[in-house]
Amino acid sequence: MSQYTEIQLNQRPDGNPIGPQLFEVVKKEIPTAGPGQILIKQTYMSLDPAMMGWMSPDTNSYIPRVELGQVMRSSGFGEVVESNHPDFVVGDSVMGMMGWTEYLVTNGKGINKVQAGVSAEMALAVFALPGLTATQGLFNIAKPQAGETLVVTGAAGSVGSIVGQLAKADGLRVIGVVGSDEKADWIVNELGFDGAINYKTDDLEAKLAELTPEGVDVFFENTGGPIQHHIFNRMNTHGRIVVCGMIADYTTAEPAPGPNWINLIKKRVMIQGFAMPDHLGNVPALLEKLTPYVMQGKVKYRTHQLDGLESAMSGLNMFFTGENKGKLLVKL
Amino acid sequence: MSQYTEIQLNQRPDGNPIGPQLFEVVKKEIPTAGPGQILIKQTYMSLDPAMMGWMSPDTNSYIPRVELGQVMRSSGFGEVVESNHPDFVVGDSVMGMMGWTEYLVTNGKGINKVQAGVSAEMALAVFALPGLTATQGLFNIAKPQAGETLVVTGAAGSVGSIVGQLAKADGLRVIGVVGSDEKADWIVNELGFDGAINYKTDDLEAKLAELTPEGVDVFFENTGGPIQHHIFNRMNTHGRIVVCGMIADYTTAEPAPGPNWINLIKKRVMIQGFAMPDHLGNVPALLEKLTPYVMQGKVKYRTHQLDGLESAMSGLNMFFTGENKGKLLVKL
Repeated sequence: MSQYTEIQLNQRPDGNPIGPQLFEVVKKEIPTAGPGQILIKQTYMSLDPAMMGWMSPDTNSYIPRVELGQVMRSSGFGEVVESNHPDFVVGDSVMGMMGWTEYLVTNGKGINKVQAGVSAEMALAVFALPGLTATQGLFNIAKPQAGETLVVTGAAGSVGSIVGQLAKADGLRVIGVVGSDEKADWIVNELGFDGAINYKTDDLEAKLAELTPEGVDVFFENTGGPIQHHIFNRMNTHGRIVVCGMIADYTTAEPAPGPNWINLIKKRVMIQGFAMPDHLGNVPALLEKLTPYVMQGKVKYRTHQLDGLESAMSGLNMFFTGENKGKLLVKL
Repeated sequence: MSQYTEIQLNQRPDGNPIGPQLFEVVKKEIPTAGPGQILIKQTYMSLDPAMMGWMSPDTNSYIPRVELGQVMRSSGFGEVVESNHPDFVVGDSVMGMMGWTEYLVTNGKGINKVQAGVSAEMALAVFALPGLTATQGLFNIAKPQAGETLVVTGAAGSVGSIVGQLAKADGLRVIGVVGSDEKADWIVNELGFDGAINYKTDDLEAKLAELTPEGVDVFFENTGGPIQHHIFNRMNTHGRIVVCGMIADYTTAEPAPGPNWINLIKKRVMIQGFAMPDHLGNVPALLEKLTPYVMQGKVKYRTHQLDGLESAMSGLNMFFTGENKGKLLVKL
């Protein structure tokens, strides 16, 4: 019998860069599918910022942590290589929560078949966590109206890039905040955003004022950081702020202060923090909302692929450095 | 003909205590009601924290400012002393926006008759801005559920005291934050709150933890100040924060920082700033919701009465010092 690799969480992040020191690489014999089970060979694995929460020492998180000694959690794409399950046949493309492993045996719960013609990249970059998160946050929380102005941080990221394109397709003015000129170029010239701000080099207040002459109606927050205050100060009456990510503060001992609330009264602004695990029951409706935009070619994406399961361990750092260009995937 | 007094806004607050230096006291001849008009003799005038916004130099406010040279805006209670209007007869009790004046002539727009048996105090302390604000913020924004825990700041204030009593009547655990032991005693022993925190003398974090053993589901914010951070840190999953007032920051040049937003994601908390002028179309429904609680004796109030129109000018300072005990009224 031949072997495969899985990676377990062995230690929690302590503020230092994420790396192999936190994990244990384990070799195992490839199992066989029992009655009612399938064996999946995972071919692509998704890396997402939410993993920081799953690994966190903070027990106060919104979904169960990955316990020490457990296989690290992740969503993935793969192929059914053995099936004793009536709903799956060998050769089916499937996606779902597969974990950091090359093979897994499952009873099929939470594993969905992927329609022919949908690539692994599109499945994981659009129809998985990023697209569902963008769709829920934008349409069900921010409730955007044509003609409004939206500003999204992490705009070249997996969620932000989809948020901006969906809003653009619905007739909003869309400004993205990014961390490099290359990303600024991509969101404006490839994705069609109306403008981009490089938070590392631009004069934030001046550039934001220039790009949002009529203020900001929707602020989709993926990152935190100092630009949050500038965007907050430009919120229009009855503005909506969707707080989806605060990567800037995930690993800081002392989180940065937020904006004073007086502006919330003056402008009657709503802020809603959200996370997809609350909305998993809503996934069919979210996919129904998202799919037409994708079919009409209105949702472009790009992937940044790492090679081999073990590359995931240091790859997670890219969420902090921002050096990935596109949805972070691991090709197994 | 005899004279009456009105007070005009003459200068905007500059951070110093509010006082006669900002106003001009004007004597005028008492007018008579023209065709379709009524003459009202105002007997009680309401002082409300919202006046800070109406007087503010900030042009970016949510309702029109009082312009310099205009009669200062306020709601009041009075008696119709002349009527050429089909809907009013001499002797009717009325309430509405009357301004800082002893007499006014009006076509009746925005002036409502008050049912016999409702005192001026009850009209202004419950059925005017305080009760409407409490009802809108609590029921339409916070959407409280029996068994939940609510914390309200400014809990002995005109809005906060009603918020707490309505929530208590609906089966919530209710904790109030106040600025004196006398107020703490009043909200617990007279109004039936489950606990009180004196923000000036208590160990805020410890006392809050002791009084909210199951965390906080609804936070009704009327004041701002350091306790905001402590309450925010105890918010439960899917908590709601209603931001109604930030008196602590109305006159500060540099508003205090707010809480970091990472907890909004972890707990999927919603924050909504609101102000009654957005909801004036909803007043009939708000009164319909509020009235049964009042009729069942579930909404107690107390008033702090100043004497004479001119006492209003320095009386406004009490919103900052907190020395008023009860809804601030001026008896004319």
